[in-house]
Amino acid sequence: MLRRELPCEESAGRVIRLAAGRIAPGVDEGPLQAFQAWHERMQPLCWWQEEPVALSLETQPGKDWLEGRAWLARLPESWYPLVSTALQVAAWLDNHRFCGRCGAPTTRLDAEFAMHCDQCGHRNYPRISPCIITLVTHGESLLLARSPRFPPGRYSTLAGFIEPGEAAEEAVRREIFEEVGLSVGRVSYFKSQAWPFPHSLMLGFFAEAASRRIRIDGIEIADAAWFSPRHLPQLPPLYSISRALIETHLREVGTRG
Amino acid sequence: MLRRELPCEESAGRVIRLAAGRIAPGVDEGPLQAFQAWHERMQPLCWWQEEPVALSLETQPGKDWLEGRAWLARLPESWYPLVSTALQVAAWLDNHRFCGRCGAPTTRLDAEFAMHCDQCGHRNYPRISPCIITLVTHGESLLLARSPRFPPGRYSTLAGFIEPGEAAEEAVRREIFEEVGLSVGRVSYFKSQAWPFPHSLMLGFFAEAASRRIRIDGIEIADAAWFSPRHLPQLPPLYSISRALIETHLREVGTRG
Ligand SMILES: NC(=O)c1ccc[n+]([C@@H]2O[C@H](COP(=O)([O-])OP(=O)(O)OC[C@H]3O[C@@H](n4cnc5c(N)ncnc54)[C@H](O)[C@@H]3O)[C@@H](O)[C@H]2O)c1
Ligand SMILES: NC(=O)c1ccc[n+]([C@@H]2O[C@H](COP(=O)([O-])OP(=O)(O)OC[C@H]3O[C@@H](n4cnc5c(N)ncnc54)[C@H](O)[C@@H]3O)[C@@H](O)[C@H]2O)c1
Repeated sequence: MLRRELPCEESAGRVIRLAAGRIAPGVDEGPLQAFQAWHERMQPLCWWQEEPVALSLETQPGKDWLEGRAWLARLPESWYPLVSTALQVAAWLDNHRFCGRCGAPTTRLDAEFAMHCDQCGHRNYPRISPCIITLVTHGESLLLARSPRFPPGRYSTLAGFIEPGEAAEEAVRREIFEEVGLSVGRVSYFKSQAWPFPHSLMLGFFAEAASRRIRIDGIEIADAAWFSPRHLPQLPPLYSISRALIETHLREVGTRG
Repeated sequence: MLRRELPCEESAGRVIRLAAGRIAPGVDEGPLQAFQAWHERMQPLCWWQEEPVALSLETQPGKDWLEGRAWLARLPESWYPLVSTALQVAAWLDNHRFCGRCGAPTTRLDAEFAMHCDQCGHRNYPRISPCIITLVTHGESLLLARSPRFPPGRYSTLAGFIEPGEAAEEAVRREIFEEVGLSVGRVSYFKSQAWPFPHSLMLGFFAEAASRRIRIDGIEIADAAWFSPRHLPQLPPLYSISRALIETHLREVGTRG
């Protein structure tokens, strides 16, 4: 519902544009550019630091936005929510130019983030894919795993997409069982994080393993192992919820201040 | 990842079909029908009570599945996860017959729930729309609201879709502020529920209001008020997470056994 409060043509307000294609490689040279007026090829996005922000659609946002996301780590953390919104809205606009139900071209609605099909009436909102991410523990120990796509030496928590008809808690138990063959006892919610690669919503959980016996699936997981808080492998980046789960556990067992 | 373990043509297993169009009105006459063999026009769905289940695509699932959902309340509660999955997969198949990115017809992948575009390579997974739903309390009192679409006299908790780039906790605070003008203190997670009308994932939260002064938005909310646990209005159905939030609060303040 943010969209309807944003300025359009008539607005005299200064608008900041997020230029697709520049945001990823161009962190140093100012990816988020200030300019003076609203124009046709912009998607009003949200309010940010008391100013309306729009997404420039001059360049079709592409894969280069998402790949090599080292640029995200270099961005001041306070910019994260804005960039996250921009990435997800850009992916949505890119993927809903035609109606999935009848194939006709879609048009953007003014009042909200929605693409409308004039032929069959179908509406498409930005896709957000809910995922679970879970740190499995056994006493002080942490169960960490690596995907075949990870940089060498890196381990992380278990993650996966929620299936249709599933509650988040059911997805936690299913993913843990599928990926490492473990049954878990108590599952407790941590917090959530928008993860715009390209449009996940990560729901973080802690899960207590009933035993240490694991069986690695070998497809989504290349390796998994129990780690002591004092001998950890290379971990995911600080801004990820995966790392936040790990750091929270380490604080709880007294290994981090 | 359920899909790849399911039987296809070769399977001798008994398959239960969920016939679209019969499931909603036909609860009494057996909406979930057993039959003997897999055929082309079926979508393998999941395992259910030790048997593979498929969705019959002979009838295009339509609005009649979703409207007048009184039938859901009559279904044994144990069937809910199966029906919820079926409804969401049916809605997804219906809405992804064409590629949203390039407009070409899509084909179903065998290995997972995914529609693939042979022209541009785009993949579409079943859409799941994460929503927050929150019971705002102030001491013992409950803040309940009614939408213009509710049956007369019914009040419920506040709900809304999560926006791109938002964490669930941010959506809770935004929705409460937008709908009733309140700022809240502590926000705590309750649990989640798949809500297949047509494809929401409800994330339930409790939120503690800092004051009782509310301002009703008048668009999404027709009325909102504080209620005492001893004088409640008509509430949402027992199977909803909205009702579960309310009942949990009532138990905590000692009004329910
Ligand atoms: N923020 C974090 O800390 C963090 C950490 C790990 C993973 N993640 C994210 O969590 C998500 C899931 O992690 P993963 O390792 O299982 O992902 P993945 O990208 O390896 O996907 C696994 C498989 O799921 C299927 N898939 C892809 N998109 C889907 C969708 N929208 N719905 C259903 N199925 C889909 C595909 O078959 C894919 O091969 C990814 O988006 C990943 O970026 C975030
Ligand atoms: N299980 C429960 O207890 C329970 C209770 C209340 C609401 N709900 C569900 O929660 C959801 C949200 O509730 P609500 O009252 O705000 O819904 P709503 O259906 O009134 O939607 C509000 C507005 O959000 C927009 N919208 C629709 N679909 C969207 C999407 N996928 N993404 C973004 N915006 C979208 C539309 O503009 C719509 O008018 C609905 O799916 C509703 O069925 C479940």
